[in-house]
Amino acid sequence: MNNFYLYGPIGAAALALIYAFIKASWVNKQDPGNERMQKIGGWIADGAMAFLRKEYKVLAFFIIAVAVALGASNAGLEDSTWMIAVSFVAGALCSALAGFIGMKVATKANIRTASAARKGLNGALRVAFSGGSVMGLCVVGLALMGLGTLFVIYSKMYGVETASTLALTLNVLSGFSLGASTIALFARVGGGIYTKAADVGADLVGKVEAGIPEDHPLNPATIADNVGDNVGDVAGMGADLFESYVGSIVSSMILGTAWAAGIAKLGGDNMGAVYLPLVLGMIGILCSIVGTFFVKTKEGGNPQAALNTGTFGAGILMIISTVIAIRYMIPQGSIEVVNILNPSAGPKVYQWWGLALAVFGGLLAGTLIGLVTEYYTATGRKPVGQIINSARTGPATTIIQGLALGMNSTTIPVLLICGAIITAYSFAGLFGVALSAVGMLSTTGIQLAVDAYGPIADNAGGIAEMAQLGREVRARTDKLDAVGNTTAAVGKGFAIGSAALTALAMTSAYLTKMNGRVEINAADPFVLVGLLIGCMLPFRFSAMAMVAVGKAAQDMIKEVRRQFDEIAELRPALMAARKAESEEREPNEEEKKIIQAADGKAEYAHCVGIATDAAIKKMVVPGLIAVVVPVAIGLIPGYGPNMLGGLLIGCTISGVCMAIFQSNAGGAWDNAKKQVKDGGHAEFKDAYDEMHLATVTGDTVGDPLKDTSGPSLNILIKLVSVVAMIIAPILYELHFK
Amino acid sequence: MNNFYLYGPIGAAALALIYAFIKASWVNKQDPGNERMQKIGGWIADGAMAFLRKEYKVLAFFIIAVAVALGASNAGLEDSTWMIAVSFVAGALCSALAGFIGMKVATKANIRTASAARKGLNGALRVAFSGGSVMGLCVVGLALMGLGTLFVIYSKMYGVETASTLALTLNVLSGFSLGASTIALFARVGGGIYTKAADVGADLVGKVEAGIPEDHPLNPATIADNVGDNVGDVAGMGADLFESYVGSIVSSMILGTAWAAGIAKLGGDNMGAVYLPLVLGMIGILCSIVGTFFVKTKEGGNPQAALNTGTFGAGILMIISTVIAIRYMIPQGSIEVVNILNPSAGPKVYQWWGLALAVFGGLLAGTLIGLVTEYYTATGRKPVGQIINSARTGPATTIIQGLALGMNSTTIPVLLICGAIITAYSFAGLFGVALSAVGMLSTTGIQLAVDAYGPIADNAGGIAEMAQLGREVRARTDKLDAVGNTTAAVGKGFAIGSAALTALAMTSAYLTKMNGRVEINAADPFVLVGLLIGCMLPFRFSAMAMVAVGKAAQDMIKEVRRQFDEIAELRPALMAARKAESEEREPNEEEKKIIQAADGKAEYAHCVGIATDAAIKKMVVPGLIAVVVPVAIGLIPGYGPNMLGGLLIGCTISGVCMAIFQSNAGGAWDNAKKQVKDGGHAEFKDAYDEMHLATVTGDTVGDPLKDTSGPSLNILIKLVSVVAMIIAPILYELHFK
Repeated sequence: MNNFYLYGPIGAAALALIYAFIKASWVNKQDPGNERMQKIGGWIADGAMAFLRKEYKVLAFFIIAVAVALGASNAGLEDSTWMIAVSFVAGALCSALAGFIGMKVATKANIRTASAARKGLNGALRVAFSGGSVMGLCVVGLALMGLGTLFVIYSKMYGVETASTLALTLNVLSGFSLGASTIALFARVGGGIYTKAADVGADLVGKVEAGIPEDHPLNPATIADNVGDNVGDVAGMGADLFESYVGSIVSSMILGTAWAAGIAKLGGDNMGAVYLPLVLGMIGILCSIVGTFFVKTKEGGNPQAALNTGTFGAGILMIISTVIAIRYMIPQGSIEVVNILNPSAGPKVYQWWGLALAVFGGLLAGTLIGLVTEYYTATGRKPVGQIINSARTGPATTIIQGLALGMNSTTIPVLLICGAIITAYSFAGLFGVALSAVGMLSTTGIQLAVDAYGPIADNAGGIAEMAQLGREVRARTDKLDAVGNTTAAVGKGFAIGSAALTALAMTSAYLTKMNGRVEINAADPFVLVGLLIGCMLPFRFSAMAMVAVGKAAQDMIKEVRRQFDEIAELRPALMAARKAESEEREPNEEEKKIIQAADGKAEYAHCVGIATDAAIKKMVVPGLIAVVVPVAIGLIPGYGPNMLGGLLIGCTISGVCMAIFQSNAGGAWDNAKKQVKDGGHAEFKDAYDEMHLATVTGDTVGDPLKDTSGPSLNILIKLVSVVAMIIAPILYELHFK
Repeated sequence: MNNFYLYGPIGAAALALIYAFIKASWVNKQDPGNERMQKIGGWIADGAMAFLRKEYKVLAFFIIAVAVALGASNAGLEDSTWMIAVSFVAGALCSALAGFIGMKVATKANIRTASAARKGLNGALRVAFSGGSVMGLCVVGLALMGLGTLFVIYSKMYGVETASTLALTLNVLSGFSLGASTIALFARVGGGIYTKAADVGADLVGKVEAGIPEDHPLNPATIADNVGDNVGDVAGMGADLFESYVGSIVSSMILGTAWAAGIAKLGGDNMGAVYLPLVLGMIGILCSIVGTFFVKTKEGGNPQAALNTGTFGAGILMIISTVIAIRYMIPQGSIEVVNILNPSAGPKVYQWWGLALAVFGGLLAGTLIGLVTEYYTATGRKPVGQIINSARTGPATTIIQGLALGMNSTTIPVLLICGAIITAYSFAGLFGVALSAVGMLSTTGIQLAVDAYGPIADNAGGIAEMAQLGREVRARTDKLDAVGNTTAAVGKGFAIGSAALTALAMTSAYLTKMNGRVEINAADPFVLVGLLIGCMLPFRFSAMAMVAVGKAAQDMIKEVRRQFDEIAELRPALMAARKAESEEREPNEEEKKIIQAADGKAEYAHCVGIATDAAIKKMVVPGLIAVVVPVAIGLIPGYGPNMLGGLLIGCTISGVCMAIFQSNAGGAWDNAKKQVKDGGHAEFKDAYDEMHLATVTGDTVGDPLKDTSGPSLNILIKLVSVVAMIIAPILYELHFK
């Protein structure tokens, strides 16, 4: 047992949390703006907390129930104990806490960003990015803190000296991953439903029916809309990456056990490979913190360049440090590794640098997937240009072109994932594949900071609009927000890629835990059936998420209409606002007075409540499917374990394609609308109205695809795999003993 | 060698062809209607033939090239000879001939159906269904005739006595299947592009821009549109099912060889299992012919019931005869069958009735998939009703609801396919799985007759409109056509289900031909990469097909606009027609005169030419992908054969889901539009205009999905598998010798 490898990661995690605390305090000390801004900010913060409170209340029951079931079913097993329930609860608590802190700070950073934007671009960027950093660092800090601490405790409790004690230790540890997945399910799927129900509802009644601008304070759904950005894009994305981060580390620790004997034979620390994922996490945290110092811009500068410098800087640092760390931890020479898939075939031989190559492959593939995503969805590029061209002939051709774009855009990311898998496997076996997921996620700290920056900038824009801070300020927040859209696309690419690799790593961990007794030969009809059902699940899951958004949006629309009808002050104010908007001017003094009189009369909390209820309620069934299907399949007498293996693979491969398809189609429609709105439809100036309408339709179709059903699939594929990994000892006991 | 089993199928095939000839002559003798109808019919027939001529010209080169490559690469192999090229050419010729005859008769039956509809419903049904029967019987007749004859020849040439001579015979025979696939690719993908390019082009300029009714003779694209129905839905569907039919028979003959020893041990004919698929084809033909006699209705009766009686009658007959045939051909007792996937595991034991169960399972699953398809896409059912509800809030929600519906609708068909696989495998091994595909396709004769009836009825309606036969006639053809839409949906379900099972059977045949040396263990990263790439292919393929339709439709629109501009007589006639249409009345005498003056001035042939060129050109790249990718993957040194195995499975499972998703979404949008148009939007009468517009948008989006990209995936999954099956001996030579 090498103490530095054990406690180093915990130390780095503590550093991340301290740094997050410093950043949070700094954000807190910034100017929160005028009274009106603070009032609006307060509404958003209250709405976000209302959602979290409600979500956590439901979660509490769910977690207790699962913990009891998990503890009871693992109690008598040779390879596990009821303590797995403790890991599970710890994982859930850490992820929930990260989400809570991240949201709390994001809902403080939004008004402060708007306030700073009154003075200049760099100040606003710093506030927004600092707010995002808190989320990023809390996620990696709490994840590594939890995992590291539990690993130290379990190492002492159960030992890591023999293969069987190490297996027990890691198995109990893996409960942490399921806890993270549970929170991710609620945060990402629920959050995705919330954000789009509010967005679509606010848009359809506000912009379309009432004819008032987006984010107008008269619209009762507007606060829910801004809350949604935080719920979906800050907490949801955070929980998603928390899950991937934890899942990739846990599964690669499990797969690393196969290297122990080979490393020991060369005189190395037999636990070297098991520690490695934790150490990579440690390095990733340090690189991320350094990266945040690179994020600076000046007035007139390009915020995108600043964010890129931070991310790429961290990535390059990471690669260099990884090579050094692996060289140091893993001995030189030919390392013999048992082939888990085919133990009788004899060991395979790898070198230390194979592991470094695997990490590098993951990081490179993740970055390239992000860039490809950006290419397919960014304004000014060919794919979005083709959507704009097709908008000339109306909404139908716009939709077809977008669907085709989304489907087309699956090709390169899939090939990149394949490349990462082949590289990692060829030079470092299954452990390498898992490490490439760790590599892709190693800089999650800064990656997520950049992601969470997006919704903060978006919120700041909304607040600038609602608080009427004027054109110049809005222009600055728009500039920050435009960057946020691109980083969101890149972040989504990263999230999907890492989810795929993590799911595959967890599938390998499942096979390892089944001691090579599971064979997923696709020519075996039972495995094939597993593959088929797995392949179909993402279709079903996506459909449920889309329908949930539609229904929730309908409820929202009804509530907004009710308020417009029943609240006496709103109607005249709406008329005044609409008149000004339709004449494309600011409201005059008299109109302003009427609008002012209605200020604060809209019952924002009602709309927040509706979105919250819908989000919590509608994610239950899809969530249950993701949990129940793998368990039910796994229990089928005789064929269960093999079928389950097929299910995991089928679900992962089709989930990846469906997620990329939906996210990119949605992203491209969104930006096509923006480009047309900004006059970027080139020679077709005369057709502006039709083209704008067509692209708005595309954008509305794309909304649930890119922000609800698409990202939910990340959760689905990981949840199904983690459930399989967790129930493996039980299945082994039932089927093979 | 049992002569009855060898020559019986050929005899039944001859009977089918004779019966088809009688039906065709009967159709030919029916009243072709007045001069105007004959003129219109002539244009459609000429257009259809123009397409076929052009397609066959391109095909000729392609086939010669492939035949040479195939012959040369198989020449020196132990398990194959250059004669496989002969089978290939024969397969292509038989499928092409079936398509030619089917189209020829369909383009005669359309005007005769319209003519008969002037007198009554039953007469019209008889003509339309007889026209469809010719297509159905030619497909099964020529398929079984070709396969049976070649099998007899090769049996004599190479022998069937030893395992290796039988393998050689069957391998050479399997070239027939690749020939069928080649035609299917051109007919289904090319035909799909043709039909939707013409349809969308005609609608957008005619209905939307010029404001004249659908099928109006002034629209230069209207003939192309009607040709498209024949090209896509008659020839395309025919070639698709021809391919499935042949593929399932050939692959189950190959898989049947595993049963030889076990059957011989019980004293049975060791070739019994190899003959069985041909014999089932024979029985299917006889049952289909009997089934056609059940199709009758009377004035005011329901044509749907008549068609159902025919199909279900044939199905029930089929089941009874199958049990008898299998009981007679396969000995009673425990039959030991070598497990191809794992020869060392020792033989498995099956009974004769296991085979009957497999056939029954396939037929049942096919029927149920058809019914589920009908449920999800039919007017008056809940799913379409939900689309209509969502149309109240505009096109965007209509699209989202339709996408969700399509994705949802994958669940039950996938489970049914899984059920059929599990049943067949449990009771009859891999041979059983292949036989369940044969079972699903056994009644193709009548199934396809019903399918091909649809476009004939649709054409008859168009002709009634163009020839102004009056409301009563149009009402009758509409009634026939409405049934056609449902049967089309059911037929599509059948086509997808059978394509999936056929592809899986061909994949098993690929594994068999590789003598158990290929292992598609999904945990092996190379297999996994194959699965991932395979899973992605249907996304890419669909996108290409959709974009092709869009581009071709744009060309069509330009041509129609050019004609409206340049042809002097058209403009005033258009104005007159539009005026009458906008006032919702028939043209008055003066307007009629103006319209009459322009009659025949529209240059239909130009539009036909554009659709033809586009269809032929745009299907080349997707077609090449389907052929090149499996070959390229298979050739990768060391890992090729395993990766290819993964590719086949990945492509099949994702192709099935994508095909069902797209077909059903498209079908549901189509019928939602129809239901709204017919006043079936219930309580929302006041919102008719918006809802109609929203559902029209849905329908336009759905058109390429349901008629081009969705059905093309049937071809993709089969083509990839048949290529693998064909190149197996070459790969074996390269990799394992």
